Amino acid sequence: MHNPDDEVVTAETAGEVLAPYLHARANDFLRALRRHGECNGTDAAGAEEATRCLRAAARRIGGTLHTFRPLLDGAWADGLRTELAWVSGTLAQEQACTSRLVRLVDALSRLTGAAGAPRDRVPQPRGSGGGGEALRLGAAKAGALLERQLTLARTRAHSAALQALGSARFHAVADAVALLASDVPLGPAATRPAEELLAAPAEVVERRLREAVRALPMAPAVGGEHQDTPWHQARLLLRLHRYALEVRSAPAPELYEAGAALDRHRDAAEAAAAAATAARTPRIAPATAYALGVLHADQRHEVEAARLAFHRCWQRTAVAAT
Amino acid sequence: MHNPDDEVVTAETAGEVLAPYLHARANDFLRALRRHGECNGTDAAGAEEATRCLRAAARRIGGTLHTFRPLLDGAWADGLRTELAWVSGTLAQEQACTSRLVRLVDALSRLTGAAGAPRDRVPQPRGSGGGGEALRLGAAKAGALLERQLTLARTRAHSAALQALGSARFHAVADAVALLASDVPLGPAATRPAEELLAAPAEVVERRLREAVRALPMAPAVGGEHQDTPWHQARLLLRLHRYALEVRSAPAPELYEAGAALDRHRDAAEAAAAAATAARTPRIAPATAYALGVLHADQRHEVEAARLAFHRCWQRTAVAAT
Repeated sequence: MHNPDDEVVTAETAGEVLAPYLHARANDFLRALRRHGECNGTDAAGAEEATRCLRAAARRIGGTLHTFRPLLDGAWADGLRTELAWVSGTLAQEQACTSRLVRLVDALSRLTGAAGAPRDRVPQPRGSGGGGEALRLGAAKAGALLERQLTLARTRAHSAALQALGSARFHAVADAVALLASDVPLGPAATRPAEELLAAPAEVVERRLREAVRALPMAPAVGGEHQDTPWHQARLLLRLHRYALEVRSAPAPELYEAGAALDRHRDAAEAAAAAATAARTPRIAPATAYALGVLHADQRHEVEAARLAFHRCWQRTAVAAT
Repeated sequence: MHNPDDEVVTAETAGEVLAPYLHARANDFLRALRRHGECNGTDAAGAEEATRCLRAAARRIGGTLHTFRPLLDGAWADGLRTELAWVSGTLAQEQACTSRLVRLVDALSRLTGAAGAPRDRVPQPRGSGGGGEALRLGAAKAGALLERQLTLARTRAHSAALQALGSARFHAVADAVALLASDVPLGPAATRPAEELLAAPAEVVERRLREAVRALPMAPAVGGEHQDTPWHQARLLLRLHRYALEVRSAPAPELYEAGAALDRHRDAAEAAAAAATAARTPRIAPATAYALGVLHADQRHEVEAARLAFHRCWQRTAVAAT
């Protein structure tokens, strides 16, 4: 099995694989940060795009520090990873508010748009259409309420992000990433061959992911919010697994679809929670609450659809892998 | 293709096939009516079962009169069919209210039961569970409201059914059915061979059914109440088709499942409409309206699930038929 010729070809050390990947992601981070600064408060779309790149780089660096910690200076890796998680978490909120609002407003328009389709051209059975009537009644108010609440949340998230980017804490992170762009604090193990050393930590992540997926609950999603957590965890593990494959230059495009299903799962779950939160606003009209209830159930059904979609992708991936 | 031996074996006239079927169903009707009388207001379960048999017989007689009208005295068939539709429609309401209430209360308990599952054992992500909280808050009130409204409707339906059964109009129907138990007013065509004559009207029904199924809209069911009507019509056509096969002693058990899916479709659609109606009750609490909105969307998703289930059954049936 062990071919000495192969060894000659693949005899890179683990550090020789890990360091260029981290250098490249650190440069992505710094480039995005520069671009964000250039947008200078006037180019909102540019700033948003730069923030997205910044977060993507931060997630990849953090994920790599986590998965390949045994090959790195452990204390340094833990410290930087915590800080990067803070950066990407803080910067994520504004975009999350925007996309949550878009998702909910789209869903309301889909729900009432269908209800508002030409009804006079089709004879109506007794009692039908009541849902549509009651829904249209409240949907406009529900939409306005969600817009008010999520716009406020977005404004707050925007301020928090700007404050974070200007903070000493962030400057320290940026300095650490700048160092990482040229110098990776490797541990003593990183001088051994990559083939041998990178596989084990990556397999730990993959095994955790497989176990997490096997244990995923599939009960109906409406009213089943208490079962979301393992799904959110599987989403993070799938991301770690994808990044570990990237490091080893073995990207798995078939995982993107499964990952997208888990992203949709998270988005729908958070949108449903936002609808439920809006429904607890004091003194709203019953029609508004009714529309928010319909919206909540609709998003929870999207949660369920995302779970099924994930399992379909995952089974295809599993079949492809065997 | 035309084998004289076959003709000797199958040379029953159309009347010889149609009359025994109608005799048998008429006897079912009269037996159920007698049983209903014997229950005497004291055996509610017995009366309910008798009513169900009465309706089943009335539907089959009416369906047969409709499909095989060309072989019958047309004016008589039209008259009796109208009266049987009135009987089965009137008697159906009480049971419909009961099963609607059961369906909605079950759904509420499923929705809040799942939400009420042990949440403290699983760590909760930020913002999750809000749907469950808001739902539990309103579900009890929504359940009580639905119970009040549907129990009232059921009581009214019960009185209407008793009044109908005691009316001169109903006695005339019962007399007509009693005559039918021994004598079917056949048209002149009914003396020709069954093989030849029963097939054509049955095929008309089957063709109408196939066309109706092909045209069924499959848009999302939430907010799509205006698209229920063609589905309800397909349900009636499928029933006519099944009865026509029964007459010709060619029952198609594979159609029961498809029929059950369309029954579920109708039940879920009416339950959703009942939830929407309840949500328009003046002065209800927002939490109640919210729960009714969730319930409405849930039942509309059941409508959608029933549509998919129907199509699966139907495709299997279509494949089996080729």
